[in-house]
This record gives sequence, structure tokens and C-alpha cells, in this order.
Amino acid sequence: MNVLVINAGSSSLKYQLLNPDTQEILAKGLCERIGIDGKFTYKPTGKTAVKAADVAMPTHSEAIQTVLNALVDKENGVIASMKEIDAVGHRVVHGGEKFAKSVRITDEVMATIEECNPLAPLHNPANIIGIRACQQLMPGTPMVAVFDTAFHQTMPPVAYTYALPYEYYEQDKVRRYGFHGTSHKYVSQRAAAMLGKPIEELKLISCHLGNGSSITAIDGGKSVDTSMGFTPLAGLPMGTRAGDLDAGILQYLMNKHGMNIDEMLNVLNKKSGVEGISAISSDFRDLENAEAEGNQRAELALRVFDYSVKKYIGAYAAAMGGVDAVIFTAGVGENGPETRESACAGLEFLGIKIDPEKDKVRGKEMDVSADDAKVRVLVIPTNEELMIAMDTAAIVKG
Amino acid sequence: MNVLVINAGSSSLKYQLLNPDTQEILAKGLCERIGIDGKFTYKPTGKTAVKAADVAMPTHSEAIQTVLNALVDKENGVIASMKEIDAVGHRVVHGGEKFAKSVRITDEVMATIEECNPLAPLHNPANIIGIRACQQLMPGTPMVAVFDTAFHQTMPPVAYTYALPYEYYEQDKVRRYGFHGTSHKYVSQRAAAMLGKPIEELKLISCHLGNGSSITAIDGGKSVDTSMGFTPLAGLPMGTRAGDLDAGILQYLMNKHGMNIDEMLNVLNKKSGVEGISAISSDFRDLENAEAEGNQRAELALRVFDYSVKKYIGAYAAAMGGVDAVIFTAGVGENGPETRESACAGLEFLGIKIDPEKDKVRGKEMDVSADDAKVRVLVIPTNEELMIAMDTAAIVKG
Repeated sequence: MNVLVINAGSSSLKYQLLNPDTQEILAKGLCERIGIDGKFTYKPTGKTAVKAADVAMPTHSEAIQTVLNALVDKENGVIASMKEIDAVGHRVVHGGEKFAKSVRITDEVMATIEECNPLAPLHNPANIIGIRACQQLMPGTPMVAVFDTAFHQTMPPVAYTYALPYEYYEQDKVRRYGFHGTSHKYVSQRAAAMLGKPIEELKLISCHLGNGSSITAIDGGKSVDTSMGFTPLAGLPMGTRAGDLDAGILQYLMNKHGMNIDEMLNVLNKKSGVEGISAISSDFRDLENAEAEGNQRAELALRVFDYSVKKYIGAYAAAMGGVDAVIFTAGVGENGPETRESACAGLEFLGIKIDPEKDKVRGKEMDVSADDAKVRVLVIPTNEELMIAMDTAAIVKG
Repeated sequence: MNVLVINAGSSSLKYQLLNPDTQEILAKGLCERIGIDGKFTYKPTGKTAVKAADVAMPTHSEAIQTVLNALVDKENGVIASMKEIDAVGHRVVHGGEKFAKSVRITDEVMATIEECNPLAPLHNPANIIGIRACQQLMPGTPMVAVFDTAFHQTMPPVAYTYALPYEYYEQDKVRRYGFHGTSHKYVSQRAAAMLGKPIEELKLISCHLGNGSSITAIDGGKSVDTSMGFTPLAGLPMGTRAGDLDAGILQYLMNKHGMNIDEMLNVLNKKSGVEGISAISSDFRDLENAEAEGNQRAELALRVFDYSVKKYIGAYAAAMGGVDAVIFTAGVGENGPETRESACAGLEFLGIKIDPEKDKVRGKEMDVSADDAKVRVLVIPTNEELMIAMDTAAIVKG
């Protein structure tokens, strides 16, 4: 079974055609600058790649048509006809409280996704445009929506309720939703497989550390708490995002510098995080290089990040009454031994101990804990596309 | 040695005359409605108390003069003359980065406290008015300033640096300061005494839980992290305060409801916390009564609070690489077995285990942990006035 996975942004569209049963990727790529001019990238497995070529893409329809043409192209295509695309899996950012799992797309589902737009005004409308363009070009092909928020809908009220006037929850839907759900779900399932135990018996802490970062407490396979909140700004400091804050800071800075709330949020989303502290870069490799050259602000930025990860590990172990394994995934989590070791330093009292030799691994599945450690530390590359394809296949097959 | 301890607010003034060596309280009381009309309360130890009597107090000077008159009163006074007041200890909320410990008040010190006014615009100016009024009425009596923030100045940069553009720290002084320092310092010293160990060898987590709440990680007698931040709004949810937040919530609510940042902060400071969730009360006793009657929102508010305390205990144990004792103090911490047991439930994996029989204690020093628990749980009534008097005496004696 072949599943086309679509991740549509407002002016971009990532795609991947893959077989979730064999986990084989047939082709993948990217459409960029949709609505502006159009750039197309295409990487068919074992054939000639197309590198960022100019292709006119006035709307998402032309973008998807370009993808489909490439997939069935006589020379560099990977399938004979569109009939070989059995289903399409769409990434949708926000499912609100409406969607606790992936769902086959119907008119009713589309209307409900639209109801969630106010919760993700930059993302959901773009996801919807991508879905509609696919429906238009591939009528009859079953489509599935996979939500970033769905995995976290198992959180109990004690974890998702903010200490705000309750009407903000009841009427305005303000609560912790959490994001990166597809990634946290995927790596927790892989962790259970690596540990050879039923996921129902495991307490896991999943650290998705990239340019955007979140940490999730997963008890018995269910998300019970997560660091991102109402929006993806919350929780850990990130590449350019501030993470959780004292709201008194906003009042102080806005009044002092004459900023309005949208200007303030722009700073908190785009000019803060490790880039804000270091004034160097949001990229952890750049910061590690600067640190190696003795830059103290780069060092401070990295340590603030690691220290936040450490505190979340402690907090979520407390939330679950223990922890069996800590998972590191995504760009920094998979490729950052320094981050992993700094975040886990001093946690021997919890039974967490990394073996620095094993921890030299980058980007592949590995148990990097010391042999005698009670809690396992696992490096697991995430694969959101595969998870989307697996969910899509499961729903389409019924 | 007798020390007069003064805690001046904008329209109120709490006072206590005590001997820090014997810990004997000679008298204490309260001036209220200063600048409006004036109410005076006076409780001399072993003599007749004055209950909220009307006394004209146009300014803090009349308030302090009223206090001094009562202290030397022939019938109900506790000292023969003002010469028996050896020193005055003033509570000052914010010492910024300027004051890492208590300090004898000089003109230079006053100027530096004034420089900290922008960081605590509601509190520091009132504290300064109280100091000036005392200086005027008691020329020659040594005076000491004791800061709420000073104890936390030992925090390392990794704990006090926000993931914001660094110029907000360098130019605008935005960083984590922390509050309740006098209380955290006092109970940590008492904990060391109770445990019979040098404080230098202890890792303590001090939970000051009242209408305002904060938790501090104290390693070797030094604050290394604390839950309140740039302002006392941050950290745990409190009686009416929201605690740490996703700033995206502010943007969403302000734009949706047409609030400005000051209106928003008013909600976050005065209409949030457990009162916001429950819509019943900010008082934990009211909430526990409502919970007992089956009110689910009261139950949710209490559990959100307890759960936050639990997560901070885990986070700060991780921050210090372990924990020897958890201290509960202040209104809820001293008198709330339900809160203590709910916050510590499931933390057996850390070695934390409360004995419910011992934990029936309210308002007195007690080790309430199970005999076989590795980590001690201590109930310790706080005494900020005694700590201020002790600091004052130590400085005046040199």
C-alpha cells in the first residue's frame, strides 16, 4: 500500500510517498514559494533527483499537480499511475478537543477542522488548502487527517488546565493542547519495541529537541503531560522561542518600550530562545562551535537549554511516579551528545546514567545508557511521515 | 537586644518588637488605612490588647508614632522608653542585583533601594516611606534593610537567565529574582537544626505555600533556583495568581477580548490561580470544604495546585542532583495535610514518603516522613519577623 504524506504550509508543501508496511520511501520532496513564483524539489529513490527547479505554482493545486506529475513521470517517476496512490495522509496542526486521533476526512471533518482555525490561525488554514487541492486532483482517493495535537488529548484535566478564570477554558478553549504529538507517539512506540516491553507497562519521557522543542510524559503509551501549551511557544526555551514565562515581564517590557502585544509576541517567538541569549544563532551546531571557541554567551544559551530539559525530566518523573526510559529525538536530540549528557548529568539519583562511549551515536536508534543504569536513555530518530502513513493505512484498511 | 521589625505597605504597616536572642515577642500589631483614616491594632505579650481602634494616620509618620506611643505606654507598654529599641529591621521587597544580603541603612543604601523601584513599583516606594518615617522619629537608632530577593542572589546564571534577547537583562534588568527569600532562608536553617546536620551538606526543597506561593531549591544553604521570577506572579498557581504561562495565551485573549496588557495582568494577578479555576475562593480551606461537599471545580483547583508542587519537587531534585528533605511552610504548607500528601503522593521512587499519622500536625515543627523514608518531609512554621530581627541584630552587633 502506498501513502502520499502531505504537510502543507501557507507557501510550502512537503511530501513523501511511502509504503508503511515495508517502510520503503518511494520519493520525497518539497514545493516552495507557492503563490510567489514556485520552486520544486523531488527525490525519487534510486532515480535522478530534481533540485530546486523553477516551476510556476500560483496556488497549492499547481504544487500538488507538479508532485503528481513527477511521481508518474515516465523517466524519473516511481509509480505507473495515480491509481498506485492508495491514500493520502495530511498533517494538520490543530485538532483542538475535537480530535483525539487520526480521522478519515469527510465534509463534516473538514468543517470541524475549520472550527479549530482560531487556535492555529497560521497553520490550520494552510493545511485545509492542501487538503482541498488534493481532493480536487485526486477525487476518490481516501484521505486521512493526522493531528499534531491528537496524541496529547489523553492528558488529564490536572495537566491541561491553566490557573486562569475557568471561562477562558469553557468559552475560549484556552487549555494546554501540546504539539509534536505524531513524533512523541512514534518514538514512544519505537522505545517499547527497543525495550521489548508492552508500552502499557512503560513510563517514558520523550524529549523532542529541535528548532522547536517539547517534552512529553508518556505513561502506559498515553501522553499525560507535555511542555508545549496552548501554543507552541510554551515550555522549553527553543531556537528562537522563549518558552514559559512570567507574564509580568511582558507588562514591564511592553510598557517600558511601547510595544503592543503582537510586537511583543514577535520578539518572544522569533528573537528569543538560545538565539536571544547568545545573539549568535538559533542553530545548536553554531552555538557549540562558538562555545568551543570560548564564547560565554553561547555557552550560557546551551546550558540554559540543557538545564530546562533536566528540570522537565525531573518534573515528569515526579508526575508519573517514576520513569523507565528517557528518549531523545529530533535534530538536537538525535545528533547532540553534548545536550544529552549535559541534560542528564547529575541524574544518577534517578537511575539515569549515560555511557559517553555509546552516546557518540548520531541519528540512529541506540540505547546509550550505562549497562548498570536503572533507567534507559534512548536515542531514536523520529519519523513523522512514517507515523502519518501508518495511521493513514490503518484507518483506510479499517 | 530588642529589634523593632517593620513591614510597610502603601497604606498599611505591620510591626513586631522582639528579642532575637531569646526569640521572645514583646508586642506586635498592625496599622491599616494609612492616608485614609487609620486603624490601629496592638498586642502586647501578657497585657491588654488594642483591637482595631480608630486612630488618625494621615501619613506613615503618625502610624509609627502611634506604634511607639503604645510600646512605651505606662499601662499597656512593654518597654520603659524608646532607648530600649536597639535597632529597627525593615522588610524591603526588592533589592535587585544590588543587595545579596541584609544591609545597614545609609544614605547611599537608600539611594540604591530607590534605584530598584522600577522592579517593584507597588512595594519598594512604600518600604522607603516606612524607613524615612522611622528615621525621622528615631534618629540615631540603627536601621537595617532585609530584602525578599537577597537570599536568591546566589542563583547561578543558568537558573536566573530568561531565554529572551540578552539586552533585556543587561539594559532592563529582566531576570529571575525570586521572592519570599527571608522565609526560605529561615526554614532552611531550621531544617538543618532539626536534621542535626550542617546546612552546607544538605539539599533542601523549601515549599512556601500560602496565598502567594514559591518553591526554592537550596543546595548547601544557598538558593540555586526558585519558582517566582522577575515578579511574584511567576511559578506555581497561587490563590489568585496564574503562575508561569504560555505568552501566546495573553496575545490570544487580549486580541479576542480587546484587553490591554495592564487589564490582562490584573486578571492574571487577581482573578486567576485556584480562585480562577474554582470560581469559589482563593482560600484553601474554603476549597477543601467545597471539595468535601462534592464540588468538582474546587477539587480540580486543589489538584492543579498540588500537581504543580509535585512537578517542582521533581524538577528541583533534578536540578540539585538529589534531595535530602522537602520543607512545607506558610499558611497552606504548615496547615494543609491534604496538600502535603497530595503533592508527595507517588514520589516514593525519590525516597519521599509521608506518614499520614504524623502528618496530622498543623502549625508546628515536625518531621512527618515515614520512619523508613530516605528523604525527610518537614513541616516548619515560617517566621520572617524573627529572621529579619536576627539579621538586624547580627549586622548591628557587627
